[in-house]
Amino acid sequence: MIIFGKNAVIEALKSSQAVEKVTISDGLNKEFLGLVSALCKKRNITLKIISRQEFKKIEGEENYQGIIAEVEDFKYCDLQDLLNEPHKFLCILDGIEDPHNFGAIIRVAECAGVTGIVIPKNRSVSVNATVAKVSAGALSHVKIAQVTNIHDAIDQIKDSGTFVYAADMDGDEMYKTNLEGNIAIVVGGEGKGVSVLTRKKVDGIVSIPMFGRVNSLNASVSAGIVLYEVVRQRECK
Amino acid sequence: MIIFGKNAVIEALKSSQAVEKVTISDGLNKEFLGLVSALCKKRNITLKIISRQEFKKIEGEENYQGIIAEVEDFKYCDLQDLLNEPHKFLCILDGIEDPHNFGAIIRVAECAGVTGIVIPKNRSVSVNATVAKVSAGALSHVKIAQVTNIHDAIDQIKDSGTFVYAADMDGDEMYKTNLEGNIAIVVGGEGKGVSVLTRKKVDGIVSIPMFGRVNSLNASVSAGIVLYEVVRQRECK
Repeated sequence: MIIFGKNAVIEALKSSQAVEKVTISDGLNKEFLGLVSALCKKRNITLKIISRQEFKKIEGEENYQGIIAEVEDFKYCDLQDLLNEPHKFLCILDGIEDPHNFGAIIRVAECAGVTGIVIPKNRSVSVNATVAKVSAGALSHVKIAQVTNIHDAIDQIKDSGTFVYAADMDGDEMYKTNLEGNIAIVVGGEGKGVSVLTRKKVDGIVSIPMFGRVNSLNASVSAGIVLYEVVRQRECK
Repeated sequence: MIIFGKNAVIEALKSSQAVEKVTISDGLNKEFLGLVSALCKKRNITLKIISRQEFKKIEGEENYQGIIAEVEDFKYCDLQDLLNEPHKFLCILDGIEDPHNFGAIIRVAECAGVTGIVIPKNRSVSVNATVAKVSAGALSHVKIAQVTNIHDAIDQIKDSGTFVYAADMDGDEMYKTNLEGNIAIVVGGEGKGVSVLTRKKVDGIVSIPMFGRVNSLNASVSAGIVLYEVVRQRECK
């Protein structure tokens, strides 16, 4: 897999992820170049510096921020790996299709300290270069399980002693719902929200109170707000 | 000003904002077309339907979602308008330069029910078509004051009996800070955070606790988390 963007490449170099080669455009600032070359040297990774013109040809229309790396394909984990953790704090994505939203959710989930993210194999985005870039490097430090059937996965998560709540409209106000202990939060797809079947499967629906006229939140912003309500309840216990 | 995108145009039509003309691409779904034409008819606004090819010429590289409107330029309000409100809940942007972040902050601020947003005239993004689109229509329902000097504005806001907190690193954990009453939250620019002078001016710094290794949040996601902590404290009083 190719990844690009400064944070994405730096975090891959800092993590244990296998990195084959880093290619950098001439003319990036010296401090950044020094950091990249030190990290590459430490891990014995080939670093190639090419001219801006050559780099431009590689990136085409996109903005790669002057740096790309060839890394091993992202290794999904098994759901069971996540469930083996003593304290479970999961984020389940039910139909997120936009790689920007997926990357942004990985970023905030990493900050919130989730055990891992669960995504379905079908009708869902999967990890790619855009996701890696938007996650600003967080992808290198978050476990993601890709499951065949999200509803079977929810059953398995519930069986592990974890309460599963969907973040969606027309639920209980999240501030009044007990989100302590082992918790999984389901985030619905852009526009469509959480699917009808998922709503039936979960232990409850939690809602973000809305005080405006449009009252529509981006998937990553609403994921951030709900994941941090879980953090707050744990922190303020 | 030209605005584009389904939600942005629909919300402009629903608001009291003057709309000169709406242009729509042939082949959009009938339900959406029906909604647009009903709203235009109600307000006596010209609706023009053009072919997909013609529309493609207008949008060029961008995706306008098949609809554009000519609207009056966005009318900023005076800071004093916001301070005249009995309950003040403000979001102050200190150096946000990316229109996507600005639009996303407007969107979540509208949901959280802010009194208004305060932006500086210089070194800051201002309202444009991209901001309108990303805000998903929320721009039509949020008051925004554009001030000459953000630090003078902070003084004026404090004088109105409003506590001003900056959301930034190395502050007090936000859950342990009293954010009830009249509150303004300062959100810093992408990458740079809140400026040194702003940090000195405010009543306090509040931080989102971080549990990851990268621990970097997008400006709109962190704005959402902090604004909703203000909402929670008010709601759970």
